[in-house]
Amino acid sequence: MKNLRVCAARLWATIEETALIGATPNGGLSRLSLSDEDRQVRDWLVAQCREAGCEVGVDELGTVFAQRAGRIASRAPIAFGSHLDTQPAGGRFDGVLGVLAGLEVIRTLNDNSVETQAPLCLVNWTNEEGCRFAPALLASGVYAGVFEMDWALERTDVDSVTFGNALTAIGYRGSEPVGQRKFEAFLELHIEQGPLLEKNAQTIGVVESAQGLIWYDAEIIGMENHAGTTPMELRRDALAAFSEICLRIESIARSCPGAVGTVGYVRSVLGSRNTVPGRALFAIEFRHPDLAAIEEMDKALLAAASEISLSRSIKVSIEEITRKAPTRFDRRCVAAIEAAVQHLGYPYRRMSSGAAHDACNVNTVAPAAMVFVPCRNGVSHSESEDATPEDCAAGANVLLQAVGMLDNSDVRPGQADNAIKVPG
Amino acid sequence: MKNLRVCAARLWATIEETALIGATPNGGLSRLSLSDEDRQVRDWLVAQCREAGCEVGVDELGTVFAQRAGRIASRAPIAFGSHLDTQPAGGRFDGVLGVLAGLEVIRTLNDNSVETQAPLCLVNWTNEEGCRFAPALLASGVYAGVFEMDWALERTDVDSVTFGNALTAIGYRGSEPVGQRKFEAFLELHIEQGPLLEKNAQTIGVVESAQGLIWYDAEIIGMENHAGTTPMELRRDALAAFSEICLRIESIARSCPGAVGTVGYVRSVLGSRNTVPGRALFAIEFRHPDLAAIEEMDKALLAAASEISLSRSIKVSIEEITRKAPTRFDRRCVAAIEAAVQHLGYPYRRMSSGAAHDACNVNTVAPAAMVFVPCRNGVSHSESEDATPEDCAAGANVLLQAVGMLDNSDVRPGQADNAIKVPG
Repeated sequence: MKNLRVCAARLWATIEETALIGATPNGGLSRLSLSDEDRQVRDWLVAQCREAGCEVGVDELGTVFAQRAGRIASRAPIAFGSHLDTQPAGGRFDGVLGVLAGLEVIRTLNDNSVETQAPLCLVNWTNEEGCRFAPALLASGVYAGVFEMDWALERTDVDSVTFGNALTAIGYRGSEPVGQRKFEAFLELHIEQGPLLEKNAQTIGVVESAQGLIWYDAEIIGMENHAGTTPMELRRDALAAFSEICLRIESIARSCPGAVGTVGYVRSVLGSRNTVPGRALFAIEFRHPDLAAIEEMDKALLAAASEISLSRSIKVSIEEITRKAPTRFDRRCVAAIEAAVQHLGYPYRRMSSGAAHDACNVNTVAPAAMVFVPCRNGVSHSESEDATPEDCAAGANVLLQAVGMLDNSDVRPGQADNAIKVPG
Repeated sequence: MKNLRVCAARLWATIEETALIGATPNGGLSRLSLSDEDRQVRDWLVAQCREAGCEVGVDELGTVFAQRAGRIASRAPIAFGSHLDTQPAGGRFDGVLGVLAGLEVIRTLNDNSVETQAPLCLVNWTNEEGCRFAPALLASGVYAGVFEMDWALERTDVDSVTFGNALTAIGYRGSEPVGQRKFEAFLELHIEQGPLLEKNAQTIGVVESAQGLIWYDAEIIGMENHAGTTPMELRRDALAAFSEICLRIESIARSCPGAVGTVGYVRSVLGSRNTVPGRALFAIEFRHPDLAAIEEMDKALLAAASEISLSRSIKVSIEEITRKAPTRFDRRCVAAIEAAVQHLGYPYRRMSSGAAHDACNVNTVAPAAMVFVPCRNGVSHSESEDATPEDCAAGANVLLQAVGMLDNSDVRPGQADNAIKVPG
């Protein structure tokens, strides 16, 4: 098993083949969850998995499980996969690579007549993107107990079609209870969706955590005034106050290693060229792999807001709207991935995922970890998203070897080490 | 003449009476230029002026001139006035005070049988506000040669009605050529529309200049990126760059005595909560009574933009869209006003007007100056605009006494001292 390598050309061919389903003029994909394109690519996947000898199950939220038998039927399967749905103008790799690399792993084992001890299970999670039916990570969220089943089925798209009806319409409302299928481990290969690997000429990211985040809605209320007649010292300028807070957010994040902090948008209300602006609405987020760091940034933000509010005689309201705890992936899964990369000799880094993935949900109920490969310029959620055939194959090889290591290890990733959740 | 005082109660009664024409529910006025309400208040004014013995002329742009004969018919009239049109949700004093105080001056002279040497002329300029027909100061602009007559007549409102047709429709398309009526001097009494007089407990502003201004449209182009996966040091964040520029604009204006600098609005384009913002559009203005100071601020702005552009690897475009030279009012007119205030004993300050007024246009072709009185909280262009009966009367008394001083002075305000225009 240690000498096995996937067939890079076959993997690439499946990427090109499935990229015809929902292809956009600029080389991207538009395969919204539960659309007809989603049905087509699911049908393709099911057919390929059956041809590869897998038993295919579909749960009540449409998640597809393709199981390959192992020698020890009592072991829970070692699972891997990702998602085949895309953004409305998405790329050909986000999610897709993880599923197709999983199929390639199974085909490679078949080609070499390798029987694993544990069963293996390729997973295609329903509605990872959340573009048609918000929120994102919907099926894995129900799988992990984050969301309620009925609530998920009642989500609607812009045309008021429910998730449940859309699922029935494409023929993927399965009978397997969500969460019934337990995993010994779950590995997800994904493009990085960030610039670090490419910038550091590394082929693999061994993902040991995913950032937690805190989102805020913020508002500044100052005082509108005539821009010509109001002296500088008598102004209560909402945009000047916004600017001060925006730069403080940047400096708070910069002074905390590994953190990011962003003001994604601002809107000056009733803004006019010759009026001192009286009101600004904006959004803030902080992310970090450690909850303690997020809490520190939260405190620093509120202190800065209060200070600026006083010094400028303006009202600053900062309302927390979402807080997600960071994910610490299972350390044995992470170790298996790292050992696989070292065995294969690829340049790599341990890293944290900036984005959330299905593996983050799964990690709360089963040992999980992730593998990243570079994407060009760090661009994702875009038709210009790109990754090289070599990097895709490298990621698939890491997946294959990590599965082998977990399969052969005496020490199983287990509940004891699983989901070391940061309190909060 | 030096002992004459206006009748404060009568002045206030005319303010209340005319405030019924176009009254809004919240105590303001909606009297858009050339609307039926504008016609009604013009009809009222013409009737009152005729009753007061004035000869009324209307020019081709509807500006109303009510002339009171003087002993020396060969002297050009000493003129005063302002405008009776308002913002769509405007106040009861902006413009109105200047016209009604002028009427009160004439009535006071009549009551006391005072014959001046020069003729006097009360003026109601058409379309000062520019809300229905842009730009503002339209009729005084043509009077002063800033705009072309035909161009003015072709301005349209949102319903594509031309200025010319609207003028005919309300019956105020007069026959007197615009600019034909020359003034020996023009004085305009107005509410300050700013906070300085109120804040300093001063009754009168002797307005010796009006600020020049420079307007810019600005754009920042950075790079959109995933807010979770893009490290702080690799970002090209358009809003962080905007914030830095916005604070620099504030500090440039603060470090230049008498200057104001404003970012009136900002729009982050394609802004999303979890995306590093890639583009921001905003407006900048600087104002100052001296052109040299405006030019200094312009230089400082461009230097700051270039520095921030380099340090953040973003593109900053700053396009100048308007530049208006400052106004230096005629020094003899200013001196007459100051002497009048001193004679009357009101607390006052010499000051610059932050806003533009018809007097600024007139000042380019005839000696002009302005008198300000306080308005509550510096608020204008609002239904809550307010001024006290006492301050209104004080302003009218200053107007009356300044007219008397100009009338009796041996040295006339004249072309030699007029319109000391700052080069540029």
